[in-house]
Amino acid sequence: MPPAVEFWFEFASSYSYPAAMRIEAAAGAAGVRVEWKPFLLGPIFREQGYDSSPFVQYPAKGRYMWRDLERICAAQGIGFRKPSSFPRTSVLGARVVAAYAREPWVPDFVRALFRANFEFDRDIDAPELVRELLAACVADADERLAAAQSAPLKQRLRENTERAAALGLFGAPSFRVGDEDTGCELFWGNDRLDEALAWARGAHALQR
Amino acid sequence: MPPAVEFWFEFASSYSYPAAMRIEAAAGAAGVRVEWKPFLLGPIFREQGYDSSPFVQYPAKGRYMWRDLERICAAQGIGFRKPSSFPRTSVLGARVVAAYAREPWVPDFVRALFRANFEFDRDIDAPELVRELLAACVADADERLAAAQSAPLKQRLRENTERAAALGLFGAPSFRVGDEDTGCELFWGNDRLDEALAWARGAHALQR
Repeated sequence: MPPAVEFWFEFASSYSYPAAMRIEAAAGAAGVRVEWKPFLLGPIFREQGYDSSPFVQYPAKGRYMWRDLERICAAQGIGFRKPSSFPRTSVLGARVVAAYAREPWVPDFVRALFRANFEFDRDIDAPELVRELLAACVADADERLAAAQSAPLKQRLRENTERAAALGLFGAPSFRVGDEDTGCELFWGNDRLDEALAWARGAHALQR
Repeated sequence: MPPAVEFWFEFASSYSYPAAMRIEAAAGAAGVRVEWKPFLLGPIFREQGYDSSPFVQYPAKGRYMWRDLERICAAQGIGFRKPSSFPRTSVLGARVVAAYAREPWVPDFVRALFRANFEFDRDIDAPELVRELLAACVADADERLAAAQSAPLKQRLRENTERAAALGLFGAPSFRVGDEDTGCELFWGNDRLDEALAWARGAHALQR
């Protein structure tokens, strides 16, 4: 098995967008496997004492973030339009990804949902949009959508969020690498993806 | 004149430490001049609605930061010991730097004060320590110290802090590059130093 990186992301999270757009290619080039871990930041922020997204609660930080994101997207060659609503999550989309995280169409669906939010300014929590994007990725979209909202699969997003809290996550994107033998390492922020991948390779080499 | 980067830092700020330790060499290699801009985060945090350092107010973020800083210092080859008191600033040290920011001994003094805090766990606000470190950098340390606390020079740190607030700074380290003609850009965080230097060179080339 190649080394793995857990990619913890939130569809509402602005810096998760450029990370989601590049992680599959970057990890592939590094020989690292991606585990897609959607979770909800809302419960985590509330538990930690934030009233809202830090970018809303602290306006100077928010103003900087939008300019910074614009620069990052330009450098990365991906589209960007400031969403007219922020933070705008997709509980349904996150449920779908959590339910089917290992299926091969998932990365495309994740990217499509992020682009809908941060490039096309669309309401990504609207069921019809989620269905439309899912139908472009997988043949049996309606069945998947229904199943993702049924009790056993719906639970997976909640489990991811509880796991994120237990791991000490406080923001997104976050990257977790290593294992119990070599020690786990957490990296926070789009800026740290390359370091997380390097660490995943190094920890893996140590273990072998 | 070579392009410049304004380096906005706080002696209490954990991520300002690795940035301060490498900025002179990194900027020199990039052909960029460093303008040393100490300021106080306390008034800025209070104005923006924080009760304390975000790393104190949000413990999960704080726990992550200390591990992250440990990794960064190891990779950079600089010493690190978690300070027994945090955040621990040096108003006197910051006044000295603000008062004499363009003098050639300033970078050494800044690094000595950061190391005292984050490598040797010393009380950097104690006047005798500031004097001791200053005396290792400049011949007339006592006169400088007295002058830095006199009305006209003391004012410079306050001006820096007011300027930082006016520029929309919300944390440290921050890097500001460009000018009115090419547009100013703000970068926040030790991770973004190299990008700030690249931007400084690019904006400067555009302008010529």
